[in-house]
Amino acid sequence: MEFPKVFDVIVVGGGHAGTEAALAAARTGARTLLMTQNIETLGQMSCNPAIGGIGKGHLVKEIDALGGVMARAIDRAGIQFRILNASKGPAVRATRAQADRTLYKQAIRQTLENQPNLWLFQQTVADLIVERGQAAGVVTQMGLRFQGRCVVLTVGTFLGGVIHIGEANYEGGRAGDSPSNALARRLRELDFQVGRLKTGTPPRLDGRTLDYRAMTPQPGDEPTPVFSFLGTPEEHPPQVACHITRTNERTHAIIRAGLDRSPLFSGAIEGVGPRYCPSIEDKVVRFAERDSHQIFVEPEGLNTHEVYPNGVSTSLPFDVQLDFIRSIRGFENAHITRPGYAIEYDFFDPRGLKPSLETRAMENLFFAGQINGTTGYEEAAAQGLIAGLNAARKAKGLEPWWPRRDEAYIGVLIDDLITRGTSEPYRMFTSRAEYRLLLREDNADLRLTPKGRELGLVDDARWRTFERKVENIETLRGELERSWIQPDSETAKRLAAVLKNPLQREASLLELLRRPEVDIARLLELAEVDSAAYTPAEVEQVMIQAKYAGYIERQRAEIERTRRYEDLRLPESLDYRNVVGLSREVQEKLAARKPATLGQAARIPGVTPAAISLLLVHLRKKSA
Amino acid sequence: MEFPKVFDVIVVGGGHAGTEAALAAARTGARTLLMTQNIETLGQMSCNPAIGGIGKGHLVKEIDALGGVMARAIDRAGIQFRILNASKGPAVRATRAQADRTLYKQAIRQTLENQPNLWLFQQTVADLIVERGQAAGVVTQMGLRFQGRCVVLTVGTFLGGVIHIGEANYEGGRAGDSPSNALARRLRELDFQVGRLKTGTPPRLDGRTLDYRAMTPQPGDEPTPVFSFLGTPEEHPPQVACHITRTNERTHAIIRAGLDRSPLFSGAIEGVGPRYCPSIEDKVVRFAERDSHQIFVEPEGLNTHEVYPNGVSTSLPFDVQLDFIRSIRGFENAHITRPGYAIEYDFFDPRGLKPSLETRAMENLFFAGQINGTTGYEEAAAQGLIAGLNAARKAKGLEPWWPRRDEAYIGVLIDDLITRGTSEPYRMFTSRAEYRLLLREDNADLRLTPKGRELGLVDDARWRTFERKVENIETLRGELERSWIQPDSETAKRLAAVLKNPLQREASLLELLRRPEVDIARLLELAEVDSAAYTPAEVEQVMIQAKYAGYIERQRAEIERTRRYEDLRLPESLDYRNVVGLSREVQEKLAARKPATLGQAARIPGVTPAAISLLLVHLRKKSA
Ligand SMILES: Cc1cc2nc3c(=O)[nH]c(=O)nc-3n(C[C@H](O)[C@H](O)[C@H](O)COP(=O)(O)OP(=O)(O)OC[C@H]3O[C@@H](n4cnc5c(N)ncnc54)[C@H](O)[C@@H]3O)c2cc1C
Ligand SMILES: Cc1cc2nc3c(=O)[nH]c(=O)nc-3n(C[C@H](O)[C@H](O)[C@H](O)COP(=O)(O)OP(=O)(O)OC[C@H]3O[C@@H](n4cnc5c(N)ncnc54)[C@H](O)[C@@H]3O)c2cc1C
Repeated sequence: MEFPKVFDVIVVGGGHAGTEAALAAARTGARTLLMTQNIETLGQMSCNPAIGGIGKGHLVKEIDALGGVMARAIDRAGIQFRILNASKGPAVRATRAQADRTLYKQAIRQTLENQPNLWLFQQTVADLIVERGQAAGVVTQMGLRFQGRCVVLTVGTFLGGVIHIGEANYEGGRAGDSPSNALARRLRELDFQVGRLKTGTPPRLDGRTLDYRAMTPQPGDEPTPVFSFLGTPEEHPPQVACHITRTNERTHAIIRAGLDRSPLFSGAIEGVGPRYCPSIEDKVVRFAERDSHQIFVEPEGLNTHEVYPNGVSTSLPFDVQLDFIRSIRGFENAHITRPGYAIEYDFFDPRGLKPSLETRAMENLFFAGQINGTTGYEEAAAQGLIAGLNAARKAKGLEPWWPRRDEAYIGVLIDDLITRGTSEPYRMFTSRAEYRLLLREDNADLRLTPKGRELGLVDDARWRTFERKVENIETLRGELERSWIQPDSETAKRLAAVLKNPLQREASLLELLRRPEVDIARLLELAEVDSAAYTPAEVEQVMIQAKYAGYIERQRAEIERTRRYEDLRLPESLDYRNVVGLSREVQEKLAARKPATLGQAARIPGVTPAAISLLLVHLRKKSA
Repeated sequence: MEFPKVFDVIVVGGGHAGTEAALAAARTGARTLLMTQNIETLGQMSCNPAIGGIGKGHLVKEIDALGGVMARAIDRAGIQFRILNASKGPAVRATRAQADRTLYKQAIRQTLENQPNLWLFQQTVADLIVERGQAAGVVTQMGLRFQGRCVVLTVGTFLGGVIHIGEANYEGGRAGDSPSNALARRLRELDFQVGRLKTGTPPRLDGRTLDYRAMTPQPGDEPTPVFSFLGTPEEHPPQVACHITRTNERTHAIIRAGLDRSPLFSGAIEGVGPRYCPSIEDKVVRFAERDSHQIFVEPEGLNTHEVYPNGVSTSLPFDVQLDFIRSIRGFENAHITRPGYAIEYDFFDPRGLKPSLETRAMENLFFAGQINGTTGYEEAAAQGLIAGLNAARKAKGLEPWWPRRDEAYIGVLIDDLITRGTSEPYRMFTSRAEYRLLLREDNADLRLTPKGRELGLVDDARWRTFERKVENIETLRGELERSWIQPDSETAKRLAAVLKNPLQREASLLELLRRPEVDIARLLELAEVDSAAYTPAEVEQVMIQAKYAGYIERQRAEIERTRRYEDLRLPESLDYRNVVGLSREVQEKLAARKPATLGQAARIPGVTPAAISLLLVHLRKKSA
């Protein structure tokens, strides 16, 4: 049966990628259908109940700056908020929050249900409608056909999913959900590079059987941080503490004794796991010298006793899981409510994607999330937003958009994926960004919201708040810039309390703020500047911009230099065999990857700066 | 792997039967394991978001009287409460509530997680451990072995589940969940009578696309009723209204035109559906003379726009569903979020059960819920409670308990099932009870709580509340009994306002209350009896007992007469071929069904009163 409505965009999958994709497409006005296996699992967190962290928090703030839902949802569902690296520079500071799973799902579903231009439909997709080699819709398990100008696939760990616990395994999309095998078979028949990856999750524990007195409590920060640029602490549900405990030598001995029955080490799992989110058995083997690893004991919500022991992801046999868990301080009598497991699934080599996240192999088909070889809710959501946006733009005949590496972590993510590919689940780190100083959490809105507004992603309410913020920052900065302090003036005497070296010559408050030792709050107080009209975020922004102006300028200049060729587009029709002087190897690499810009070409391993110069010469000659 | 703990009771399945079973077993002190496919779906309502109704409300109150969770949960999750048949006699009055699905699941899960002696574990059960022909535990999909003295199976519609929409079908336990095929295969190999039944659900609609102005609103009752004997209206979340609309001739024409592609009429479904909860296509065919059927438009929760159109359950092809939905007033632009479907599944002939709900074919194995051929959350929960209780009692070597037909609807349910079996999904009606006047909602606690206390099902808090209630009823009744009113007294003059015929002779207030026209509230007011110390339920109870005393006495006497033989146990070893005078046919029927009591024997179709007399003679001779 043919569904009577033709959609602009059909998003398949209601995880973190799918929900952002559907919301982004619908926000820009595209008639969007979100098709998912089960409406009850919209926005479900497959693994740990937390959002953010270093690198990931940055992504969440960027998604928020572009009008996305993730930060808004966690502000309504977060039960413990912290700023990580709070004592370090602003570039690596990052927000992280524990979530109440039920509240998080509820916030996501409510946002989806209230989004204009967005329709929800519960069915499992089994096939794509392909017309003249282009995606043109989807076919469900029941044979219902839905036509869409563009299709965004975000089916996570479900394609050919196999769940492993010790020597046993069975088919599943994640614990409790069916795998997507019909769709996986179809996609394998099509023109994509398919590989296998794996990821794992720890056993869940019954909190009533834990001895919290044997652990270290870890409360959230005070004052409670927020995630969204529109968020307030008043939106948060009640806050609770996490706890910390550790593995010990006995734990490790039990694990080592069980390794021969581990599917990771027996060869039963072929997929590669996430290096930066390793299982506890991985850690015990790889870091054999360490006799203890930290475990964060995270509540799963306000209304449940279930607990997520972060740090002991495992696919060891269940008897080994039970033994090693009970060897841990505070867990001596622990009851496991759900066994830990690993899951293996199909992913597609992301080098097969354009930077818009459209696949090269099939026009009008976009991929986002775990199926592109990434891991993590935030990475999935970031891709979802870009894929949904570009699917909507393509459906309207508009050019795609994606942020550059120097504009956003989202840009780093996409560029890394499509130019370098990945051989293990990819997750974000601040170290992946070369322009870290520019890509801070605190300025994600300043970097991206104007563009988001232009793209139709940012609604009026957010835009008004943003404009007010920009104006206030300008006003306060201007005021500080115009406030000249004379040496020996009354103000200078008061300011001596915060200055390492006394004032020698006339200086503006803005200049003084640049001194590393000066805190803006104290400065404003002593200089008697009335700052009641500014939010803490605005005041902080003025300080960061002042203090890091020099570094930021230098990074900007470097970007300018690189950008000159970075952005230079390489025509898809370019025949690399005609580029004079290029080695056969480099020719083949470039032909295989088809980079969209010279910058991407430069980041392909094996493509030397010399080769880039040759390419540049070739392009200049051609366009002349 | 062998789990290190041996449980008294293992309950398989976390639906309505499974949760009551696990809670009942654990309440009596049995070490209980609840094993379910997915902890996230504990207490999930597969179909309509409502609890109670005529006959069903009675079951819920009885479950509550025995310490169960269902009434407590709906009091915390109900968003519209009504008393059905409020204008009729107290026997057929019944409470019904719409549920917020999420809140309902949350209330159930919270109760389970906080129940002492109860452990939860997430895994799919694939097999039973059978030792010397007796159930001794379960084996999960992953090969984990859990030993239990008794096992209660409550796996609902999941055994060999097949989902149908039009001509398409696929395997599933219900939409979004996997079927239990491994377990189904194993059970088919064992000694049970397996059959197929089917049930269906309507499509869900996006409330934003409905025109509520074209429908009739139906608010809840004021004052808001409660379900549990411990409940208060303050526990309820905010209350909302339902709406009513109707099918019309065009709707019926569309449905008739689609019948040739209906799996019900094409023969694709072999299972028999619920006669009293028919699909709309069933109704259109069976009641061809009617040109309209009512639809209750029920909200699925406070935080969702999804809507459940109660009355149009269907497995017609999706295009027909879409067409007929849009032919309905108020639904002209409806977007369907989830298609309607029918599900076929295995059930076991309940005549293979003892009244304790233990199976005859395998000792220590109990069945409860949908797998016994019933339909409905309340029917499932009622069986769950009895099966869980008796599994716990069996594990401790205690005699089983179940209520008689004259003690509870639960007794009617069990007795109907095990003596008559069922050829279609069985649901409760008040008409199934011969002692309706005794089995009222209002006295469920008076009927059952003392027994529940004795069985260890009722905790101290409930017991104290109950004792206070009984005492208050006694006190008030006594006071009314002792308040003698003289004709021509001041009080008599005031009372004239509520009496049809004036007082002729001295009468107690209790006598006056028996007059049909007298309302107790008015009576107490005019007679200046201080009733501030009594709850409305207590006052109502005194009135009902007074008014119906005559009828109730007559029913009691009848019960006494029948009970004489009703309760007479028939030894399992009884050889019916030795009963002089019994026809071969009756001998075979009795041998096949093995009734536990003479009463049950009497209710087997074909067993005549004459045959019962012969049996009675036989038994007297044997025991003499
Ligand atoms: C066991 C496990 C352990 C993990 N461990 C970690 C970890 O340690 N660290 C970490 O960062 N991340 C981890 N993750 C990954 C994290 O859950 C994912 O990165 C993230 O959920 C990906 O989001 P997504 O939107 O791409 O896919 P998902 O969240 O998986 O969502 C996929 C969606 O698609 C739907 N769907 C699937 N097939 C179909 C179909 N055919 N038709 C319609 N809908 C369909 C599903 O129902 C679901 O809604 C783990 C995941 C799992 C399952
Ligand atoms: C489509 C549909 C339509 C329905 N329509 C109606 C209706 O119109 N009217 C009506 O009164 N009732 C209807 N029902 C029936 C109602 O949902 C059931 O009567 C009720 O849910 C039965 O409760 P239960 O506890 O027996 O089973 P369920 O509620 O089905 O619960 C079964 C539980 O067992 C778990 N489980 C299954 N297999 C395994 C396994 N191998 N290992 C571990 N756990 C397992 C499941 O996850 C689930 O938690 C309908 C049900 C469905 C699915």
